[in-house]
Amino acid sequence: MNSEPAASADPGLFDKVVNLCKRRGFVYPSAEIYGGFRSTYDYGPLGVLLLRNVKDAWWRSMVQLRHDVVGLDAAILSPPAVWEASGHLKNFTDPLVDCRNCRERFRLDKLDDPHTCPNCGKHDTFTEARQFNLMFKTYAGPVEGKGAEVYLRPETAQGMFINFKNVLETSRKRPPFGIAQVGKSFRNEITPGNFVFRTREFEQMEMEYFVPPDEAEKWYQYWCQERLDWYRSLGMPDDRLRLRPHDADELSHYSSGTSDVEFLFPWGWDELEGIANRGDYDLTAHAKASGERLEYFDQAANERYVPHVIEPAAGATRTAMAFLMAAYDEEEVEREGTGKGESRVVLRFHPRIAPYKVAVLPLSKKVELQAPAREVLSLVQPHWMADYDETQAIGRRYRRQDELGTPLCVTVDFDTLDDRAVTVRDRDSMAQERVPIDGLVDYLRPRLDGE
Amino acid sequence: MNSEPAASADPGLFDKVVNLCKRRGFVYPSAEIYGGFRSTYDYGPLGVLLLRNVKDAWWRSMVQLRHDVVGLDAAILSPPAVWEASGHLKNFTDPLVDCRNCRERFRLDKLDDPHTCPNCGKHDTFTEARQFNLMFKTYAGPVEGKGAEVYLRPETAQGMFINFKNVLETSRKRPPFGIAQVGKSFRNEITPGNFVFRTREFEQMEMEYFVPPDEAEKWYQYWCQERLDWYRSLGMPDDRLRLRPHDADELSHYSSGTSDVEFLFPWGWDELEGIANRGDYDLTAHAKASGERLEYFDQAANERYVPHVIEPAAGATRTAMAFLMAAYDEEEVEREGTGKGESRVVLRFHPRIAPYKVAVLPLSKKVELQAPAREVLSLVQPHWMADYDETQAIGRRYRRQDELGTPLCVTVDFDTLDDRAVTVRDRDSMAQERVPIDGLVDYLRPRLDGE
Repeated sequence: MNSEPAASADPGLFDKVVNLCKRRGFVYPSAEIYGGFRSTYDYGPLGVLLLRNVKDAWWRSMVQLRHDVVGLDAAILSPPAVWEASGHLKNFTDPLVDCRNCRERFRLDKLDDPHTCPNCGKHDTFTEARQFNLMFKTYAGPVEGKGAEVYLRPETAQGMFINFKNVLETSRKRPPFGIAQVGKSFRNEITPGNFVFRTREFEQMEMEYFVPPDEAEKWYQYWCQERLDWYRSLGMPDDRLRLRPHDADELSHYSSGTSDVEFLFPWGWDELEGIANRGDYDLTAHAKASGERLEYFDQAANERYVPHVIEPAAGATRTAMAFLMAAYDEEEVEREGTGKGESRVVLRFHPRIAPYKVAVLPLSKKVELQAPAREVLSLVQPHWMADYDETQAIGRRYRRQDELGTPLCVTVDFDTLDDRAVTVRDRDSMAQERVPIDGLVDYLRPRLDGE
Repeated sequence: MNSEPAASADPGLFDKVVNLCKRRGFVYPSAEIYGGFRSTYDYGPLGVLLLRNVKDAWWRSMVQLRHDVVGLDAAILSPPAVWEASGHLKNFTDPLVDCRNCRERFRLDKLDDPHTCPNCGKHDTFTEARQFNLMFKTYAGPVEGKGAEVYLRPETAQGMFINFKNVLETSRKRPPFGIAQVGKSFRNEITPGNFVFRTREFEQMEMEYFVPPDEAEKWYQYWCQERLDWYRSLGMPDDRLRLRPHDADELSHYSSGTSDVEFLFPWGWDELEGIANRGDYDLTAHAKASGERLEYFDQAANERYVPHVIEPAAGATRTAMAFLMAAYDEEEVEREGTGKGESRVVLRFHPRIAPYKVAVLPLSKKVELQAPAREVLSLVQPHWMADYDETQAIGRRYRRQDELGTPLCVTVDFDTLDDRAVTVRDRDSMAQERVPIDGLVDYLRPRLDGE
């Protein structure tokens, strides 16, 4: 959509987007009336639609349009046994140090100078590093203490592994097949930041694809390509998207290959999604810890094996933000009907991602326009998420819809009363076309639902 | 859909439904390979689709098809200030007692005999009752302790109240208008139970509708009717659904009216949703605690007021289960093509609620049927969630789809190779009809998408 070259990061974009997110109701700081709650965010009327569209587009592509992937929705609260087997209780940690002088606490691996406190400036005041687990812990039942601990999942993936056997037995799928899940995860990040990019509460879109061991490499390559194509198909420009294979020293000990889908954020290239060849690590670990056989018996080959796993794991919230940043554009235009120049901000969202697909705008607040405007609205609403706005001059309302990224505006004017037609205005070209009300849905369908 | 009279609860239904849920992949006990995790459940491939359909139908009705309601997605983790203002820190409690003899812990208000321990049988061994808060507490940041506490929200509603001002300023809505949200909430229930009906982790569908004070009663009546109609429109039978106004002694001190939408569960009538006239209690409480003005200024009347709130608050997970229980049916039928009688279990879901809308079934595994069957599948998938199954005899596959509640099966047979037509079989009537592949989507559309 955004056709300008953008090969380098644009630091100025960050503030513009954060500002627009608040002003237009995409993202609010959480509990803002109480001074906010550090690095937690609420998604407003526009943001919740954007986020839903991203998640729905993922689900559609990963579950609905395939016959080899089924969905799952596992619990967020989970017992220690799961995280002991997965290794999270032991290894999902950051190294923390305290300054003995000012008592501030830091992540050792994030310090520019591991000898000097960035808060008070003293040298060699740090305690020994201790490992801090990033999982949120709470207690279920009436007694706090040993045996009642539960953890908020730090990733959705384990839900798929521990349900592998259940899904295999009830779904009639066999390798290669996948289990997909969209849902919230929680990590007690010591240094959250970059707006919604790294937050303690976030939403994931993960899929575990179980394959015969000798097909793992093939499917790893397949999913790298497939996932990259998904972002492109929704309008992510090529020059702000890349697939970066991990170097050998970045790989987990169990992974024989991992690649990140990266987006060029205002602060540089950063991760949207990781695609990992996890081998049989997860199923074997849970089989060992639980005593269950987490295997597949191939009747044709009379062979039993532990499937290998290819995992495309994306962040929904950061992906939504990447789509918004990629869509952001400013340009000089002529204000409709005035001949005057002005600058506009426009979010050039792909129609599938755009929060509102259509805005219905009566030209004025005059009472005779209300009935036809409401009629048009109720024709459109069963098919698409629509906004309705009768305030302000029409030019200002177009500007507002541009900032929301609404692909098409439908204006009901006084001619409508005679000709039963409306003006459809295109967000990107700003071209206007007269369309009969009775043919409106058919006119909109290919423009909004076309792949 | 389910036309038999069912004026009394059916206790036998409970086990049948729980069994079907596990067998067909609707609901699994959480962390089952580790012995399960008490009263927590995971939604399997069928359950996640059912739950999505219920939530999407709610969202469609409450947000998409209206122009006076906007959405929100607020954080689950929230600071103590929110729950202090809302009263949850002080009042969201159950009274607990310990038996001094056997050390078991009980909810005082649930004891049949408040003097005798139901565990060890001793008399008058209970401690004084203490108030146990139902909110899950954890700590954000690297230090556990005072100032770092956060709570998992016990309801989504407060997210709408604390964002009232943000939404008012960015959305161009004015009273009467609503804010709607779907999301997880968490309550540390001492006595969860009845399968997914009462769980520590659950999903809510809540809407806060802000109205001029003198219109509160009118809108309360409106929403009671509107919400009852919603369940009916999705096939909930009249004789298992009722609206029950609270008695005066059930009402919260701030509520001037509350009604529950109740469903006839196997254990009797129980709540799906509460519709409450909450007055100005919530906005006033948060305004007082935060110092922000949570009011609306009506320019036309030159008048400032605190809107009153009508709240329809439904449980998504329990509503999904109610739809499943209402849909459950058993009957004697003739197995297709055999002339033999057999009994079948059929879930008579409304098409909008049914997990799969269509199943594509090649008559046999013969290789020549695969291409046309896949072609039919890929025609259907862009429009509807479809299953594909090529295992077992066709009669057994129909029985399986009946148990999943799939409204229509599309069978590809050897005649298809000649006539490019398929057999469409109706779940409820079991009638079959021959339909050309090229007209299939148009044939299915009114049967699956019709309101």
